[in-house]
Amino acid sequence: MLVAPYIDAFNPPRRTLMGPGPSDVYPEVLAAQARPTIGHLDPLFVGMMDELKSLIQYAFQTENEMTLAVSAPGSAGMETCFVNLVEAGEKVIVCRNGVFGERMRQNVERVGATAIVVDNEWGEPVSVADVEAALIANPDAKFLAFVHAETSTGALSDAKSLCALAKQHDCLSIVDAVTSVGGVELRVDEWGIDAIYAGSQKCLSCVPGLSPVSFSPAAVAKLKSRKTPVQSWFLDQTLVMGYWSGTADNSAKRSYHHTAPVNALYALHESLRLLANEGLESAWQRHADMHQVLRQGLEGLGLKFVVDEASRLPQLNAVYIPEGVDDAAVRKQLLENYNLEIGAGLGALAGKAWRIGLMGYGARRENVALCLKALEDVLK
Amino acid sequence: MLVAPYIDAFNPPRRTLMGPGPSDVYPEVLAAQARPTIGHLDPLFVGMMDELKSLIQYAFQTENEMTLAVSAPGSAGMETCFVNLVEAGEKVIVCRNGVFGERMRQNVERVGATAIVVDNEWGEPVSVADVEAALIANPDAKFLAFVHAETSTGALSDAKSLCALAKQHDCLSIVDAVTSVGGVELRVDEWGIDAIYAGSQKCLSCVPGLSPVSFSPAAVAKLKSRKTPVQSWFLDQTLVMGYWSGTADNSAKRSYHHTAPVNALYALHESLRLLANEGLESAWQRHADMHQVLRQGLEGLGLKFVVDEASRLPQLNAVYIPEGVDDAAVRKQLLENYNLEIGAGLGALAGKAWRIGLMGYGARRENVALCLKALEDVLK
Repeated sequence: MLVAPYIDAFNPPRRTLMGPGPSDVYPEVLAAQARPTIGHLDPLFVGMMDELKSLIQYAFQTENEMTLAVSAPGSAGMETCFVNLVEAGEKVIVCRNGVFGERMRQNVERVGATAIVVDNEWGEPVSVADVEAALIANPDAKFLAFVHAETSTGALSDAKSLCALAKQHDCLSIVDAVTSVGGVELRVDEWGIDAIYAGSQKCLSCVPGLSPVSFSPAAVAKLKSRKTPVQSWFLDQTLVMGYWSGTADNSAKRSYHHTAPVNALYALHESLRLLANEGLESAWQRHADMHQVLRQGLEGLGLKFVVDEASRLPQLNAVYIPEGVDDAAVRKQLLENYNLEIGAGLGALAGKAWRIGLMGYGARRENVALCLKALEDVLK
Repeated sequence: MLVAPYIDAFNPPRRTLMGPGPSDVYPEVLAAQARPTIGHLDPLFVGMMDELKSLIQYAFQTENEMTLAVSAPGSAGMETCFVNLVEAGEKVIVCRNGVFGERMRQNVERVGATAIVVDNEWGEPVSVADVEAALIANPDAKFLAFVHAETSTGALSDAKSLCALAKQHDCLSIVDAVTSVGGVELRVDEWGIDAIYAGSQKCLSCVPGLSPVSFSPAAVAKLKSRKTPVQSWFLDQTLVMGYWSGTADNSAKRSYHHTAPVNALYALHESLRLLANEGLESAWQRHADMHQVLRQGLEGLGLKFVVDEASRLPQLNAVYIPEGVDDAAVRKQLLENYNLEIGAGLGALAGKAWRIGLMGYGARRENVALCLKALEDVLK
């Protein structure tokens, strides 16, 4: 026998999470998650899932029947959209203005489809004009895929215009809303988004590990008309929907697909419930307001934003690291002396920028104050 | 705006979970999960992950470097093994004696490989002789895949002999240990298992949603020699390992792949810590002992086991539903009047058998007593 390791219980400190996610989790969500586990086919659990579905519909502002939470993080939500909708040989226009657009491209290639990449600079929004040109140049494209709120740069793209363009050119739109949902305006039905995925750990202030997704009727029709099986068994929505809302034929019976992450779903239910109680528009306004307070303070410290004001995300503030300042040392001091986490730069911005999150429950005045004072102290 | 639904907080009752999983969760695990969320790149979190890795190694009895928890349920662990190791066109011998062997076959086909199916009756273990015949008849097979403990029937297969056969015929073994780990003897290194996956929600008595996996050096070599990229981005272990243990080149730096399910990993850390404190052999013995008490009681009620004694799992007791008894009504009474969940039959056993779990923290004398008395009352 290999000997058992002797390991103490893990007692994490209480940090203030102002990175790119996970964000500060609502205390109510942590408490909800610790409630007793019940079976994933228990009638009470199934009732909770019905509520959860209506809460996700609210957060996305959609009446899409196919709305659920993928039992895995946002990256799996992204993959869910691509492997279910896109088939080998099809053409997808992928907008790339940061890490997550590039990840979309990789997803397209891994299903054997062709990605037509529309590149914009890191820190810029997706160019609506460039996308229109790509759509015109590629009349056989079937999808337009873009990131609403780029977590790697803090740039917000014009999802409404992009989805309108997609529709005009007979493309289905696939939208990454991991960082946008709950933090900025997002209207799935009104804007005509066909497939959307999010993450639990950003502006929803839930624990990380789940990905709310939603498919429009047009996306569902595409899924049903597939010529080949979905390459992933785990993410195959034709199977998963048998559990989330009876079969596609609308039988009421829930059939087993995989064991749902019961306690994590309690947590998501609670976080979305808190969002619904606050009201989406109030939450959007709170993010905008707290961003203004943070912005003034950061500019007062002489820090410059990566993204122009017009397309700046309130919930993800990327600022350039001042010359001569040791990136890692600053973040270490904030973490060790103030229990404050801010994010490092990612990809092209690694070592050049910090990413300061104001997400969900974290978008509060006390967090802004702590961040500004701690940065002031450390940068002195 | 779509109107916010008004929904109350979800307060699940305290059930005794004696189905096929999720099992009763240790109270310490629920408490661990509710501790404050910290960042997935926080040095303290990374230290916790190192401990978690050694705890998974202990539970599997392996020194495999590539040992980690997939950020999704057991079904995703299964898919992780198949999509990383098996390439299109390769041949896999798949043993099917229940639902999960069939699921393995579907995984094989979805990577474009060929499944040679060895069928055994539901309730029987995998036949070592039949597998040997299949290996001889298919000298070009590269993998042998089987389920150690079939959750749909309660049959235990002889993993040690099957893996020895695989080795003899130059096949890598892929083993489903979702229900076996922690409940019955399992020795990855000693038995020569090449790829193994488990689930958090069975004999580990953690919350559902994670899948510990481990790859032998031979499996890692196969992964590294792939001619094509892994079809799943999310489950691509060449990328995931960059986060779990630095890069494949052993650099110490953790690179971001996806946001780890932080709180769920706290829970798994705690559940495996409790298992290590008890000791694997003690846990195996406890499952065997409690099974004997349950068995005597069930037989005293006139119930008959689906699986022969020689290959019966202590942690998953499938018994035939007596003639004239209403399956659903009995389970409903147990749930509503005793807060006790037992499992329905699955697949070929649906409506014909109940599955009574004695898993992890659930394998206790008080659970056995409650189950026997409640069944006695309800069947009267």
